[in-house]
Amino acid sequence: MATGKINVSVENIFPLIKKFLYSDHEIFLRELISNATDATLKLKHLTRIGETDVTYGKPVIEVKINKENNTLHIIDEGVGMTKDEVEKYINQVAFSGAEEFLEKYKDSAKDSGIIGHFGLGFYSAFMVADKVEIITKSYKDEPAAHWTCEGTTEFTLEETTKENRGTEIILHLNEEEKEFLEEQRIENLLTKYNKFMPVPIKFGTKEKTLPKAEDAPEDEEAKTVTVDNIINNPDPAWTKQPTDLEEEDYKSFYRELYPMQFEEPLFHIHLNVDYPFNLTGILYFPKLSNDLSMQRDKIQLYQNQVFVTDNVEGIVPEFLTMLKGVIDSPDIPLNVSRSYLQADGAVKKISSYITRKVADKLKSLFNQNREDFEKKWNDIKVVIEYGMLSEDKFFEKADKFALYPSVDEKYYTYDELIEKIKANQTDKDGKTVVLYASNKDEQHSYIQAAKEKNYEVLLLDSPIVAHLIQKLESSKENISFVRVDSDHVDNLIKKEENQVSKLSDEEKEKLKADFEAIVPKEKYTVQLEPMDSNAAPLMITQPEFMRRMKEMQQTGGGGMFGMGNMPDMYNLVVNVNHPLMSDLINQDKEVQEKTIKQALDLAKLSQNLLKGEELTNFVKRSFELMK
Amino acid sequence: MATGKINVSVENIFPLIKKFLYSDHEIFLRELISNATDATLKLKHLTRIGETDVTYGKPVIEVKINKENNTLHIIDEGVGMTKDEVEKYINQVAFSGAEEFLEKYKDSAKDSGIIGHFGLGFYSAFMVADKVEIITKSYKDEPAAHWTCEGTTEFTLEETTKENRGTEIILHLNEEEKEFLEEQRIENLLTKYNKFMPVPIKFGTKEKTLPKAEDAPEDEEAKTVTVDNIINNPDPAWTKQPTDLEEEDYKSFYRELYPMQFEEPLFHIHLNVDYPFNLTGILYFPKLSNDLSMQRDKIQLYQNQVFVTDNVEGIVPEFLTMLKGVIDSPDIPLNVSRSYLQADGAVKKISSYITRKVADKLKSLFNQNREDFEKKWNDIKVVIEYGMLSEDKFFEKADKFALYPSVDEKYYTYDELIEKIKANQTDKDGKTVVLYASNKDEQHSYIQAAKEKNYEVLLLDSPIVAHLIQKLESSKENISFVRVDSDHVDNLIKKEENQVSKLSDEEKEKLKADFEAIVPKEKYTVQLEPMDSNAAPLMITQPEFMRRMKEMQQTGGGGMFGMGNMPDMYNLVVNVNHPLMSDLINQDKEVQEKTIKQALDLAKLSQNLLKGEELTNFVKRSFELMK
Repeated sequence: MATGKINVSVENIFPLIKKFLYSDHEIFLRELISNATDATLKLKHLTRIGETDVTYGKPVIEVKINKENNTLHIIDEGVGMTKDEVEKYINQVAFSGAEEFLEKYKDSAKDSGIIGHFGLGFYSAFMVADKVEIITKSYKDEPAAHWTCEGTTEFTLEETTKENRGTEIILHLNEEEKEFLEEQRIENLLTKYNKFMPVPIKFGTKEKTLPKAEDAPEDEEAKTVTVDNIINNPDPAWTKQPTDLEEEDYKSFYRELYPMQFEEPLFHIHLNVDYPFNLTGILYFPKLSNDLSMQRDKIQLYQNQVFVTDNVEGIVPEFLTMLKGVIDSPDIPLNVSRSYLQADGAVKKISSYITRKVADKLKSLFNQNREDFEKKWNDIKVVIEYGMLSEDKFFEKADKFALYPSVDEKYYTYDELIEKIKANQTDKDGKTVVLYASNKDEQHSYIQAAKEKNYEVLLLDSPIVAHLIQKLESSKENISFVRVDSDHVDNLIKKEENQVSKLSDEEKEKLKADFEAIVPKEKYTVQLEPMDSNAAPLMITQPEFMRRMKEMQQTGGGGMFGMGNMPDMYNLVVNVNHPLMSDLINQDKEVQEKTIKQALDLAKLSQNLLKGEELTNFVKRSFELMK
Repeated sequence: MATGKINVSVENIFPLIKKFLYSDHEIFLRELISNATDATLKLKHLTRIGETDVTYGKPVIEVKINKENNTLHIIDEGVGMTKDEVEKYINQVAFSGAEEFLEKYKDSAKDSGIIGHFGLGFYSAFMVADKVEIITKSYKDEPAAHWTCEGTTEFTLEETTKENRGTEIILHLNEEEKEFLEEQRIENLLTKYNKFMPVPIKFGTKEKTLPKAEDAPEDEEAKTVTVDNIINNPDPAWTKQPTDLEEEDYKSFYRELYPMQFEEPLFHIHLNVDYPFNLTGILYFPKLSNDLSMQRDKIQLYQNQVFVTDNVEGIVPEFLTMLKGVIDSPDIPLNVSRSYLQADGAVKKISSYITRKVADKLKSLFNQNREDFEKKWNDIKVVIEYGMLSEDKFFEKADKFALYPSVDEKYYTYDELIEKIKANQTDKDGKTVVLYASNKDEQHSYIQAAKEKNYEVLLLDSPIVAHLIQKLESSKENISFVRVDSDHVDNLIKKEENQVSKLSDEEKEKLKADFEAIVPKEKYTVQLEPMDSNAAPLMITQPEFMRRMKEMQQTGGGGMFGMGNMPDMYNLVVNVNHPLMSDLINQDKEVQEKTIKQALDLAKLSQNLLKGEELTNFVKRSFELMK
């Protein structure tokens, strides 16, 4: 039996890195700036714990383009490297400098914000450069080193002279990557990935107009000076303590994140947790527009202030992807698939932490200023209702602050609602019936009829409302939801009282036959009812169950299979106690037909069913009558 | 100056593979089965070119679970490896066996469908296994070899005995990956990734009912036998030549791809190209449902019959992501980001090839059977219209087959349409005016009025129609699109003829004042017009330009900034030649007000603007009048 060592073919490592490490070429800049930040923060840490007596000062990272030489330079003023360190950290791929450093200074390094994985990240430079140079001078009193490599496994390393402490990386860009010599391209990349990194990043200079002295003459020209163009904000709001921030700070950070966004956020949620995972961030509830799908993917994910992605699917519960803001966590694995993310324990904990924080914030907004919460309800309800549907834990918490607005804009919590309607809206079987409308305009006459009975009618108009009430009916006891136009008002909530019919049974039978002779029966079921004589003579209703199942099908999932495409079925409710009906049975056929058709047209109008040619004819006829 | 060799730290390779190679643990099975397929196809190739005298037979790949030992076995009957080959291919990571093989048999290996990259793929086994064994016997007359490795860089390799040619991989699953011992999990994975791989894959057995003999007695029980459970179809339709397939073959392949889909596809497009890239596949046009966003991502991407992903964003032009089907190409880089994909030259060519093929197919369907094409138009128009908007090349091609249906279901191409309407629908400035409606029901009275003038009215009801007509107006000459309800019919297409007013200028002035006193002027601009006395006395119109800009804003992009939220503005067109108007000026104030209000209600009804309380009151009033 032979044993041996697996032999990694070195020549194959470079292509491997190019192929697998990062698929996006532009990433190299993020990686090199992460390394530069790393080196700067290391120095800060060392000076803080007294490991060195050099002064930290105000180091910046500079990015420079040299078009003449086709080079891009990334220069930091951090710890630098000695020749031995270059040998160690650079020539041994996948040997993470930061890791070893963290190991050595374990306790004191905690919270010092050290970023990375030097070795591998550095080699991403070869994705865009034919040749890479490192010129570096350590904070230790040693000569500077100069490393050069042309993308093979050969390198040169020699002593050199460099005055300032720190590292300069010089990329000799490859023919195909000349785009990285364009100022605009680099500025965009820096803004995308490094906008909130913790060390100031200088990219060129800019003109700045100085404020005039107070006693300056009117006609004096404003003075401008040239200053460093710092592209990042090294201390973004989410890295601060909530107690150090005012409402206005959150708003101005929102504008910093979304400069093209003119609308202010409704409110924010500051996330800040150390254990069992590390997560900071600020989430904002924006005003949602109609197109929900366009709202998604506005949350930005950072790791130690380095931008990673704006796709937080799998990290943030789906119903919260409509929010905006920033999440920063070193505990979220990168470069992994969504399905892996979703299975990851830490990510699961993060997701449920965020859900809990959002629920708590909503609860406290509700408690602290209910009036304001009610005003915002319409803008936030989709998120909350979607959350109630998709996360059981959120459903439980939301029960205390989810609102059910009436058509008259009164807002009830679930408990308040039941308390309010129990007496008047409980049917003979002891079920409390919640009446609702989906559209105040379209269901106006039905809402009116219900209000005349002193019933409270809710306005539930979210796209997913059919799913939500289905869920409420199954989790609450003894309640049911019924839309106001699903039956005539006396039947919506069935009570013991019975209306007496003014017509005899024979008369009713005849009336029914008269209607059925004229009304298309594949569409309408004629239903004779003894109602108040002041109620409408004829109305069209649509039974709750079928309609709701259809709606659920149409809004994706749930309901009953195939019901999304069923034709609409209506009941035609004939109020036998209305004087029109007593007249009708005695009319001759021709007049009767005219009367029934006109009454049907009017009933259809009330249910938005009179359309097209029928409506045109109705209007024409009505204009004729006016002459 | 020192030169040297970059030293790859071997110990760091395993974690690197685990971290970067594949983020999804389940991928290991796809990789191992790819290797097994590879080994089998190599043997097929060698026997075909006479390199060996072993018989190819009917090799299968078997996947077996051994719960007792916590092992998963992948067994093939392919070329196998000698001990030296194991040493070479397995112990040297990143050394691609397939590559070397291809190099050696370059010419004859073309088209033999050899898959992969053995080395790296194999190591993905360590993502789920603590220990991996290889037991393998080469087709060459040499002893079998047994390799074992426990996930470090140490391995053992010894001779062993194995009767059959081929390779068995044994994975000793790691504690956390026990899910891969579940039959259902493995079967799901095999179905997901290997459903169409070219070598039969056996996973357990299944019962099969034998057909009864024809002369068998009635009461004889059906016989069942146990047969191999082959989970894949090694010869999927897209690998065949279009000439070898019937319509029914395409349909049955569709059912194979989407077993849960009951609706048949409208038609298919067989993709088959060798140069300058290799691509095969079948795309289907499905019937699209209302929710377009749910239609996306149904196209599956394969590489040499191995499933890769169902996200083809960036590969297939966006407007075609609503199609279904399969694309198979070894030329699409994997494991790369979307932005990289979009920049890749081969991918760009693939994308425009697909666009061209789709356009050609549509063109030939149109030419071959126009009647059928017209029938399908409503189901395919969104894709075509979206394509016309987003891809200029497609726009050009589609000009020959894109249809413009009239409200009477006549279908015109653009050229036919202009030919048809030019004489009657060209205005006094020489512009040909295309009239359209967005809804036959809602705009019925306006359509009627236009038809009475023998105008052709199109029915354009796609969600993106405002964008499409904007594009048509800017790419075609001397045409404009006008919706039928954007003005009264005499103004839609302005001709020289002038209607004479029956009212004097003073009367008109008075009439206008009467209307403006009653009608809310922030909503309606009163516009007096001398029209036909049989036309409606009063109508509401909505000017084309503002309405279209609003619609474009609301359907995402284009239009004018901020217009999406502008209030609707209407014109109230008063037909001064209608008898009602001559009556009106002489009525006393009270009657006049009643008349104007009733007329306004009727005009609103025709434009779907009478809603809520106004409608309820109108209906109530009308019922009163019937008594």
